[in-house]
Amino acid sequence: MARITIADIARQAGVSTGAVSYALNDRPGVSDETRARIVKIAADLGWAPSSAARSLSGARSETVGLVLARDPATLGFESFYMQFIAGIETVLSERGYALLLQVVPDLETEMHTLRHWRAARRVDGVVLVDPRISDPRIDLLAGPDQLPVVVVGDTALAGGLTNVWTDDAGAIRESVRYLSAMGHRRIARVAGLRDFGHTHIRDEAFRAEVEELGLDGTIARTDYTAVQGATATRNLLTAGERPTAIVYDNDVMALAGLGVARELALEVPRDLSVIAWDDSPLCEATYPQLSALSHDVVRYGGHVARRLFEQMDGAPRGSFLDSTPALRPRGTTGRCG
Amino acid sequence: MARITIADIARQAGVSTGAVSYALNDRPGVSDETRARIVKIAADLGWAPSSAARSLSGARSETVGLVLARDPATLGFESFYMQFIAGIETVLSERGYALLLQVVPDLETEMHTLRHWRAARRVDGVVLVDPRISDPRIDLLAGPDQLPVVVVGDTALAGGLTNVWTDDAGAIRESVRYLSAMGHRRIARVAGLRDFGHTHIRDEAFRAEVEELGLDGTIARTDYTAVQGATATRNLLTAGERPTAIVYDNDVMALAGLGVARELALEVPRDLSVIAWDDSPLCEATYPQLSALSHDVVRYGGHVARRLFEQMDGAPRGSFLDSTPALRPRGTTGRCG
Repeated sequence: MARITIADIARQAGVSTGAVSYALNDRPGVSDETRARIVKIAADLGWAPSSAARSLSGARSETVGLVLARDPATLGFESFYMQFIAGIETVLSERGYALLLQVVPDLETEMHTLRHWRAARRVDGVVLVDPRISDPRIDLLAGPDQLPVVVVGDTALAGGLTNVWTDDAGAIRESVRYLSAMGHRRIARVAGLRDFGHTHIRDEAFRAEVEELGLDGTIARTDYTAVQGATATRNLLTAGERPTAIVYDNDVMALAGLGVARELALEVPRDLSVIAWDDSPLCEATYPQLSALSHDVVRYGGHVARRLFEQMDGAPRGSFLDSTPALRPRGTTGRCG
Repeated sequence: MARITIADIARQAGVSTGAVSYALNDRPGVSDETRARIVKIAADLGWAPSSAARSLSGARSETVGLVLARDPATLGFESFYMQFIAGIETVLSERGYALLLQVVPDLETEMHTLRHWRAARRVDGVVLVDPRISDPRIDLLAGPDQLPVVVVGDTALAGGLTNVWTDDAGAIRESVRYLSAMGHRRIARVAGLRDFGHTHIRDEAFRAEVEELGLDGTIARTDYTAVQGATATRNLLTAGERPTAIVYDNDVMALAGLGVARELALEVPRDLSVIAWDDSPLCEATYPQLSALSHDVVRYGGHVARRLFEQMDGAPRGSFLDSTPALRPRGTTGRCG
């Protein structure tokens, strides 16, 4: 693992560094015999082309970028991103690519990071997550001669860029219809951050479906943390006309909601039905096991990475549905009353 | 965000590309006046030095590497790594560094990745996690002229390299003593992967402490997943002489254990005490709330990154204790019987 340079190879082969360069870059200028000898010496010494040199010569950085504008203190407690990243890595590793990951405090710093990566050629493409309504990052990456990009989110939020999405509206409508069919008339949704476009899409679909079915629907706001999930649940369950079913925007808040129900001596699912988003082993580790809107997040990450490689290879832009999260009823949903 | 080159700047300034290079690299060869003009034009155009060019000239890649040799399918369900990475990023971002992350299936691929990063100068330093007994990565990185490295783990596992560690032996001994003082005589430990050095250290400390106190101690093996945590718990609790207290190697398995206790109609903590490792909001979201061995994983990641920067800046090797995870008794521990 010593730093082997072209000069080391030239010294050992008794040729000029220019000859080594010709040989290793498969360019004319040296005899086949000399080329073979140089290539063998380079291999024996464990030489690898410097990524820096390859970048300068117009080759790729073999790196894909991902910026997460999330609070580091809460990022670790949702399983989504670690699974999603693990999924991206399964596809990257097939091509010897690595992931450049940056966690930043806000959208402004994310914009700065994307500009810097682009200007300094740090990455060959980027994955853009948590798209917002009128997202400035979309404008930044939409121009000609920009970085290849895949937006992870709804087509309506992607501004014409390539996107991979899950049908969140369909999933929330399915869960409301299911609860309605089980006799529930008062249903609450404990939602995530308002800034995110997918929160907006889920809100709208929830409102539309409860209205269509003539139900009583309430939306509570949180930052995705267990603490705010518990607080929202406490407020909902101690109100005058408490909901008999709650749909949560992630698994950790649903778990917290289950804890609050026990704390208030409500029995699940007899007194309260609970549905989590982002099914995970966590949902199967509780007792009763959590009913969840289930999709394979690791596979989702892999799908995104494959579409990004296509973009890097010059494919036309497109919109790709990954899946519709499917309701998996387990022990926390039941008939009302 | 167009690709601004030195040639673009030269054209606009009406000088040679050589003059631009002198000016931007702060080398003699141009007048102060011309230098100022060129620097201003470069700034106006949004020029940023290519990381490739800086690497070639011996400057840094401004990237720190982390390889995780873990199964992508299970990686997402432990909060440890996402928190740890978030902590690293808090310190990296202060210096404008990014994290190069690669998830690989096994140690062999990790070795290959480290060799490649070193040879291709992809990173300025690496964080090495999950050290094992007689770890080949330590040998790889221990030689002269190697990558700066910080080993995340016990000094006994770091082979003289700089390490940042938590006192796992002290933490497991504390929890056994606490349970003993509460009258527990049969205590089990549901342990993680045997390959990892820290599992071995916790095993030894657990055995030593139960022997010293004359208790009955059992160790069950798992892969850290909720499924195996549940299975191990079921086996322990349906054995002839079941333990009255279980200490788990992570939070997800402790949660699964709580579920199994409910399933078997055992009341926690009256019939069974439960302690989790890696305190998290998850532990406070359950009811009763999980007693846990608590340490701040985000801060731990930040500490590791700071020590790595010191190594990159040429500091001598050292061994640094981050913290001893402290027992935080909550609702799942109580007197035996």
